[in-house]
Amino acid sequence: MSDSTATRIVLAARPTGAPTPDDFRVETFQVPAPRNGQVLLRNRWLSLDPYMRGRMNAGRSYAAPVEIGEVMDGGTISEVVQSLHPAWSPGDLVLAHAGWQTHAVVDGESLRRKLGPAGLPVQTALGVHGMPGFTAYAGLHEIGKPQHGETVVVAAASGPVGATVGQIAKLHGARAVGIAGGPDKVAHVRDDLGFDVALDRRADDFAEQLAAACPDGIDVYFENVGGKVFDAVLPLLNDFARIPVCGLVAHYNDTAPPAGPDRVPQLMGAILSRHLTVRGFIQRDFIALYPEFVREMGQWLRDGRVRYREDVVEGLENAPEAFIGMLAGRNFGKLLVKLD
Amino acid sequence: MSDSTATRIVLAARPTGAPTPDDFRVETFQVPAPRNGQVLLRNRWLSLDPYMRGRMNAGRSYAAPVEIGEVMDGGTISEVVQSLHPAWSPGDLVLAHAGWQTHAVVDGESLRRKLGPAGLPVQTALGVHGMPGFTAYAGLHEIGKPQHGETVVVAAASGPVGATVGQIAKLHGARAVGIAGGPDKVAHVRDDLGFDVALDRRADDFAEQLAAACPDGIDVYFENVGGKVFDAVLPLLNDFARIPVCGLVAHYNDTAPPAGPDRVPQLMGAILSRHLTVRGFIQRDFIALYPEFVREMGQWLRDGRVRYREDVVEGLENAPEAFIGMLAGRNFGKLLVKLD
Repeated sequence: MSDSTATRIVLAARPTGAPTPDDFRVETFQVPAPRNGQVLLRNRWLSLDPYMRGRMNAGRSYAAPVEIGEVMDGGTISEVVQSLHPAWSPGDLVLAHAGWQTHAVVDGESLRRKLGPAGLPVQTALGVHGMPGFTAYAGLHEIGKPQHGETVVVAAASGPVGATVGQIAKLHGARAVGIAGGPDKVAHVRDDLGFDVALDRRADDFAEQLAAACPDGIDVYFENVGGKVFDAVLPLLNDFARIPVCGLVAHYNDTAPPAGPDRVPQLMGAILSRHLTVRGFIQRDFIALYPEFVREMGQWLRDGRVRYREDVVEGLENAPEAFIGMLAGRNFGKLLVKLD
Repeated sequence: MSDSTATRIVLAARPTGAPTPDDFRVETFQVPAPRNGQVLLRNRWLSLDPYMRGRMNAGRSYAAPVEIGEVMDGGTISEVVQSLHPAWSPGDLVLAHAGWQTHAVVDGESLRRKLGPAGLPVQTALGVHGMPGFTAYAGLHEIGKPQHGETVVVAAASGPVGATVGQIAKLHGARAVGIAGGPDKVAHVRDDLGFDVALDRRADDFAEQLAAACPDGIDVYFENVGGKVFDAVLPLLNDFARIPVCGLVAHYNDTAPPAGPDRVPQLMGAILSRHLTVRGFIQRDFIALYPEFVREMGQWLRDGRVRYREDVVEGLENAPEAFIGMLAGRNFGKLLVKLD
């Protein structure tokens, strides 16, 4: 291998505010041959996730930024085409981090799970049975710790993290209050996912609706958006409430801090007087839990105790538009790109 | 008992901003006779602590506010004068919460430790060997968790919490960086308490000095003040830093939030991207640790491994002025009122 031509999407420019199509560039490239220890992958599915917006900036985020001209970062379901690593064979379907491209040569050591006939669609390994689902699982297990009868609130509740947070909270005997944007998503969260209450964050009286939905206050707020949802949550937090922070998508396109007053003293005062725990994390921080997650979530999915929804876009060339839409809340469920 | 006349200080008015002498009123009163299960106390030492400012407000704090006309709240070292409770006898010296008054009748069940010949001055049970010392001990033990070689930063480092935080951090093998107001306090923190570095928060280039004092970043910031110190700390916090929050004295007299921009998104972004843990607490949250603290700290004090400084005011009538001064940083060490 290989004289075949592959396609990739690279970062063309660092966005100011919301990304635009011009910040991405589609390129064709010759796939290099794998060397010893490497494997050649053909990507089948690409995951699009909010964290990628952080990688487009020059500044510090979870990890090093993507450099201009580099292929965009991303989790994939990939097929092994050629292997010079003993653990992998042609035809294996694997969970990889092979980026926004049709083919990639990667170190065999970097590959994660081999995906077999687990009774689940393989692409769930990018969603409810993968990074977003594990984010929900680990954040609740290690930080949120919902107890029977407590109230758990999560935003972006039709997305892959939020949907899973609420359903796991229910499995722990907690009340789940989900927040979503628009009537279709709200109906999905309530009727399909089984949250106790679903609210539309766009409602004029959203803060009042949230207060009414949480008559005993909020014990766990799983923070993945920030912005006005957080503002409505803060006054409702109970003493000893836990706030796992895994995302702030409402702010990822901010170009300047919002107007004052400065509410940092108010937030710190609430943390102090109400004994709050606010903790930022990514799922990798709790990687020791991952095997347990794969096993337990797999069973929940096969039993139908946890449900999920996918939003599938066909073709790598449509990834930028889909990604831009996701940051504006236009996806409905786990956003995936199916590669031909 | 008792036809003797006692003195107390009551809350005369709720302050707006910094308290003034007019917010307090000195009263004489007839000491009531204890009933069954009660004891009559004569207070020997009164502790003055920043948390009392919160109790003067009508709003929610750690605990219910002091009502107008009620005696001000406070920890005391008291002598049992008369006891109708089997656990206590006349002459016992006890740790109590008998408030800003010379005498009190309290339930025998409410009394805490009996203070005996532990080789320590009894009034340390209100400071380094009591609530402030336990705040430092518990906050580090349960939240800060300083590791060998890590950098621990604390403000109000000549006060009873901050002084103890730095010294315990050193006992854990961490570097201790203390912040205080003015050259005398800075010298005390460095030379008497043995912090690795002591800085004056009033210096024009304080933020630059702090950065220079923390070349490997900050792993634990023990938050007891807020304000500009927190602003200088935030950019220096390492990934996975821990921030126990036990006080925000820089803000207790605030009457309005500071001018913008609103930095809550910036703070939440730092919590997310640097995996920070920010947790509010009071020492009571970790009361199960208290016996271990009394034993271990007692030994450290007798061994001279932990030092402390007291700022003693004579006479109950001087408590309001001393308390007002403490909120402005005019005390130097643990502030105590010695009652005649």
